[in-house]
Amino acid sequence: MAAQPVTIALDANGADAGPAEVARGAARAVAADPALRVLLFGPAGELGEPVERVEIVDAPVSVAKAPDPVAAVRARPEASVVQAVQAVADDRADALVSGGSTAAALAAGVFRIKRGHGVHRPALALLLPVPGNPFLLLDAGANVDVRPEHLVQFAHMGAAFVSSVLGIERPRVALLANGTEPTKGTAAVVAAHAALRDMPGFVGNVEGFTIAAGDADVVVTDGFTGNVALKVMEGASAAVVDAVRGAATSSTRAKAGGLLLKPALGGLRDEIDPELQGGAVLLGLRKLGVVPHGSFSARGIAVAIEVAARGVRGDLAGRTHAALSAAGALRSAPVTTVGGS
Amino acid sequence: MAAQPVTIALDANGADAGPAEVARGAARAVAADPALRVLLFGPAGELGEPVERVEIVDAPVSVAKAPDPVAAVRARPEASVVQAVQAVADDRADALVSGGSTAAALAAGVFRIKRGHGVHRPALALLLPVPGNPFLLLDAGANVDVRPEHLVQFAHMGAAFVSSVLGIERPRVALLANGTEPTKGTAAVVAAHAALRDMPGFVGNVEGFTIAAGDADVVVTDGFTGNVALKVMEGASAAVVDAVRGAATSSTRAKAGGLLLKPALGGLRDEIDPELQGGAVLLGLRKLGVVPHGSFSARGIAVAIEVAARGVRGDLAGRTHAALSAAGALRSAPVTTVGGS
Repeated sequence: MAAQPVTIALDANGADAGPAEVARGAARAVAADPALRVLLFGPAGELGEPVERVEIVDAPVSVAKAPDPVAAVRARPEASVVQAVQAVADDRADALVSGGSTAAALAAGVFRIKRGHGVHRPALALLLPVPGNPFLLLDAGANVDVRPEHLVQFAHMGAAFVSSVLGIERPRVALLANGTEPTKGTAAVVAAHAALRDMPGFVGNVEGFTIAAGDADVVVTDGFTGNVALKVMEGASAAVVDAVRGAATSSTRAKAGGLLLKPALGGLRDEIDPELQGGAVLLGLRKLGVVPHGSFSARGIAVAIEVAARGVRGDLAGRTHAALSAAGALRSAPVTTVGGS
Repeated sequence: MAAQPVTIALDANGADAGPAEVARGAARAVAADPALRVLLFGPAGELGEPVERVEIVDAPVSVAKAPDPVAAVRARPEASVVQAVQAVADDRADALVSGGSTAAALAAGVFRIKRGHGVHRPALALLLPVPGNPFLLLDAGANVDVRPEHLVQFAHMGAAFVSSVLGIERPRVALLANGTEPTKGTAAVVAAHAALRDMPGFVGNVEGFTIAAGDADVVVTDGFTGNVALKVMEGASAAVVDAVRGAATSSTRAKAGGLLLKPALGGLRDEIDPELQGGAVLLGLRKLGVVPHGSFSARGIAVAIEVAARGVRGDLAGRTHAALSAAGALRSAPVTTVGGS
């Protein structure tokens, strides 16, 4: 069976390695997927040789390093990320991939792409490269103060994403809390727990210890706690790795040990390589956005494009709506464009 | 100059290694400090040989493993932790050390020891054994939903603790947030930031990455985020250590490397040894409580006792009140016993 044709709008500005590296990621992705087409927005002169099924749109203006990304995407409609988002909003593309600033992609996405039917608030989710057990954590920072109904929707949106993209039939969904009992957590978490009790796949609360232990495929929290948890995870892991590296250079004997260990530790590094998951994901809009980290190489950009294409082919939008509807979690007020009429 | 005499009320029940290990911790502490006296509450028959300046009070009942510690400390006034807390409340001891359940010590402390003058809510703080840079994180889980004025008081209480116990003259105090800008964070964090702007030593917001980077001596957050952050830190560190250990046994070559590295990694383990900081700290009551982790050996119990004694000698209560008063952060309503008249 031929794969469903998919068009991805890709912003080439903002990646640390420059627009050419993003273009190489696009080339890599289309080479692996004959039904994939990419609209590539960036400085045409820096995007290398033409590649079949990668259509270049000259968009040299970048807001990826703007100090205030929200103001910048409002003020610069010609910016590459805004044009890429607009292509998705206009149905010229099926999903967005922006290899630059998460904040700019989020702001442009929220301003220009409509929310999914019945969705209160879009969420920023992160696919975490935990060895043997990748999982989705949301919200990662888009919604700092949340109500229970937001957390409930995040749970369904996250489950729809991992089922359509990772192919997990009935994802295990958990709430992040300060204890496993249903009574633990902020008032919003306790209320969300009660509302999610009957959700298929809901496994209750998880604590910070076990966030990466394989207990859940989707971990739901507010954007404040999620952002702190993700950064603590990154900071603590780096501190331990640094300390091990420091120990491995502290004496001649330890140095010899470090050298012998190096190949095995290299394997570990590959397993926790963030490029292999594709980066952050913008959920709850009418269409999917994927935001690879600025540090990603062409390989990581290609994974991000592949994740976005899987979301389109797995009918993320349809699954999200069906899940919210089945759970009675659709927003009842009329849905309008986020950020104004 | 002779050290100020200090009496510590010590609960011997609940430590994983049993009451005798806690008694050995008391013996170790008094041996190191001629002006120290310990009132030791536990099963007299299991506490070993008499030691000078360690007065045993037979209190065999333990609520350390009770499924509902709050109910248990209310129902069992004869429990060792409740008796130890009562000794502090009655001024027979200057501070509490409980080598068992944090929840039980917290509940008993809140019910029986009065809040410090002008304090809204007691907080649970944790001294974190980050190599080269121990710091205090609070709240670690006692107050899940907080108002700005609670965060402001936590900041002053934490600063008074590290100045009286760690001897840091003007501690650097930070708020944990999802960004360093003063506008980042929940509504409560943003309001607390504004209120703390003029606090001596306030360094603004820190993010999850840098929580352990040495940027602050006191990191202030709500009990929900603090609990999640601490457990994520512990879980992520353990996962990396496990992965390194796994890599070091994955091949003969790697095994040889692991053996050569072992002494250097042992040094690292000592540096991040949680026993060296003494454990969790109960702040905001009229007197200090220290709760070493259940896994601590006599060495860690002795550190906890020493931390409590330093808090007494450093006039923690006086410094806390002076700091809250100077900042205009005292609670204005009449202060009554927490949990009822």
